[in-house]
Amino acid sequence: MALPESVVPCECWARDGLQSMPVVVPTADKVEMIDRCARAGFRKIEVTSFSHPARLPQFADAADVLGRIERHPGTSYVVLMPNAKGFDRFEACVKDGIGADEIILMISASERHNQLNFRMTHQEAMAEHAAIMARAHGLGVRIIGCAGTVYGCPVKGDVTTAEVAGVVRFYLDEGAQTIMLGDTTGVANPRLVRDRVGELMARFPDAEFIAHFHDTRGTGVANTIAMLELGVRYVDCSLGAIGGQPATGAAKYSPGFTGNTCSEDLLAVLEEMGIATGVDVDALIEAGRRAEDILGQRLRSNVIRAGRVIHGESSPDKETGLRPA
Amino acid sequence: MALPESVVPCECWARDGLQSMPVVVPTADKVEMIDRCARAGFRKIEVTSFSHPARLPQFADAADVLGRIERHPGTSYVVLMPNAKGFDRFEACVKDGIGADEIILMISASERHNQLNFRMTHQEAMAEHAAIMARAHGLGVRIIGCAGTVYGCPVKGDVTTAEVAGVVRFYLDEGAQTIMLGDTTGVANPRLVRDRVGELMARFPDAEFIAHFHDTRGTGVANTIAMLELGVRYVDCSLGAIGGQPATGAAKYSPGFTGNTCSEDLLAVLEEMGIATGVDVDALIEAGRRAEDILGQRLRSNVIRAGRVIHGESSPDKETGLRPA
Repeated sequence: MALPESVVPCECWARDGLQSMPVVVPTADKVEMIDRCARAGFRKIEVTSFSHPARLPQFADAADVLGRIERHPGTSYVVLMPNAKGFDRFEACVKDGIGADEIILMISASERHNQLNFRMTHQEAMAEHAAIMARAHGLGVRIIGCAGTVYGCPVKGDVTTAEVAGVVRFYLDEGAQTIMLGDTTGVANPRLVRDRVGELMARFPDAEFIAHFHDTRGTGVANTIAMLELGVRYVDCSLGAIGGQPATGAAKYSPGFTGNTCSEDLLAVLEEMGIATGVDVDALIEAGRRAEDILGQRLRSNVIRAGRVIHGESSPDKETGLRPA
Repeated sequence: MALPESVVPCECWARDGLQSMPVVVPTADKVEMIDRCARAGFRKIEVTSFSHPARLPQFADAADVLGRIERHPGTSYVVLMPNAKGFDRFEACVKDGIGADEIILMISASERHNQLNFRMTHQEAMAEHAAIMARAHGLGVRIIGCAGTVYGCPVKGDVTTAEVAGVVRFYLDEGAQTIMLGDTTGVANPRLVRDRVGELMARFPDAEFIAHFHDTRGTGVANTIAMLELGVRYVDCSLGAIGGQPATGAAKYSPGFTGNTCSEDLLAVLEEMGIATGVDVDALIEAGRRAEDILGQRLRSNVIRAGRVIHGESSPDKETGLRPA
C-alpha cells in the first residue's frame, strides 16, 4: 500500500467522453468545458480527436477546438491520434500554432480487438505508429502510448500480461513518455489490477503508467484506487462518467450509462483520502452540472447531487426525513 | 491485504432498499424478490422492518411478509427492530411460528444524529435496546448491533472512533452476535475504512463486523473491498443500489439514486476476484432486472446491462461499433 501524496488527473470528457455520445456537441460548448476544466485545476485535458470526420463527426471540429481553447501554462492539452492521415491534419494545426502537447496512440493488447476496432494487425499498427511517433518527436510533441484491452477483451476474453507487455514495450522503445493502460470495456477488478500492473511495473520499472478505467460494471473508482496504491500517479476520468467503448451489446443501452470513471466521484474521494488532485472539487461539481446541461441528460455523477462530504457542523435538512441506515 | 476466500453477503433490497422508496411495493412482489434471493444463494436476507406502520407504510405488511416467504434451510432471515413496540409485534410473529433469525438494532455513533433520527439520546436508546436484546435472547433470536454514521455524520460532520466504539461496546456487552458498521450517508473512503475498521478490530478482536456502505458518492464498491481486505467476511448490498438514508438535500433527488452498495455490481466483481459469495451471479442479474420491473424504474446496477465479464471467446456484436478506448 503506497498511495501517492498527489496525482495528476486527466479530464477526458471532451474526447473519450464525447466519443460515444450520439449528439454532436457545439464547438463553443466543448471549448467552454475544456476551459472550465483548466480553470478548475486539471493539468491534463483530452480536448479532441483527429479521427476521420466522416467516421466520428463529433470531432470534425478538432482544429477549431484547438484554435479556440485557452492555453493555461502548465496544462497539457492532449489529442487522440488514430492514424497517419489524422497526423497530417494535426501537423497543419501545429504549424498554425494551435497544436497539442501530447498525442495518444493506441493499440489493443488483444490483436483480434485491434483488428476489429482499427482494422490493423499489431504489426501494421506498430509500423504506422512508429512513423507517427518519429514525426511527433520532430515536432516536440509528447506521446502517450495506450495499450487497450489490458484486463480483458470483449471479443476474445482473457488477455495475457505478455500480450500487454508487447504493446507497452513497443511504445517505450519508440519513445513514448507515458503509457496508458486502458480497461477498454470495464472488465478489470482490483485483484487483477494489482497483479497485472504490478507485473508490468516490474518489467518496465522506468515507465510512467496512466490508470484508465471504464465504469462499465461499476468498478471504476475501486480499480483506479487499486492502481494508485501501486504508486501510479496518472489517472484518467470523465465528467459524468461518460464515454469510451460501449460494452458488448451496448446498442440497447441508454447513452451515458457506460464510460470512464466519473471525475467528480473519483477526485472527491481521492481528496477525502488526502491525495492532492490539484482540482478544485467545487469547480468540478459545477463543471459536472454544466456537462449535464450541455448534453441535456442526467449523467452518472453521484457527487454533483450528494455534494461533498461534510466535516464541520451542518444544519439538518428537514426535508431529508432522516431515517435508519 | 488479506482478502477472504469467501464472504457472506446480505441482500438488503426488501428492507433497507425499499425503506426510502416512495412507492409501497405489494407484499407478493416483496415475497417473490426475497424468495428469488434465497434461491440465488443468499444466506442472509433483510426481509422487513417492524417500524411503526404509520411512519413507514412500506413495512405495514411485516407480519404478512414473514408469513408468506419460503424458509430455506441455512438462510438467515433478518428484520429491522426500531423499538420495543416493534418488538411486541415481532414477538407475536415468533409465537405464530413466523419469526426471523436475526434482528437489527441501530444506534448512530453521532448522538446528534441519533436524536434527530430516532428521537433518543444514546443513554435512552441503550436502555431500550438492552431490554429488547434480553427479550430476543429469550426467544433465541440473534442480534445484529448496528452502529450508524460510523465514518461521519450528515449533521455534525466528523465522528470519532471512540464514539463508534461506545456503540460497538454496548452491543457486544449485551450479547450481539455481529456488529454492522453503517456508512449511513455514504461519506467513507477506503483510507478511512482501513484506519477506522482497523482500530475497531484491534479494540474488539473477537467481534464479527459487517460492511455496510452506501453508494451516495459512488464509492460503495471501493469501500466494501477496502473493508474485506481487512479480513471482514460479512457484507451488505442491495439490488439496484436502492435504499437507505437519503443524502442531505435529498429531497431534490430522483428516487433510487442513492442507496446501498449495488448487489449485482459488487458480487460480480467479488466473484471476478476469486472471492466466493455463494450467490449465482446470473440469477442475481435476473433478480436485478425483476427489481426494476417491480419498481417501474431504471435503478443503478451496471452489471445487469453490461453483463458479466467474458473470459472465453465471444462473437463481436456488429451493433456495438467497437471504437477506441
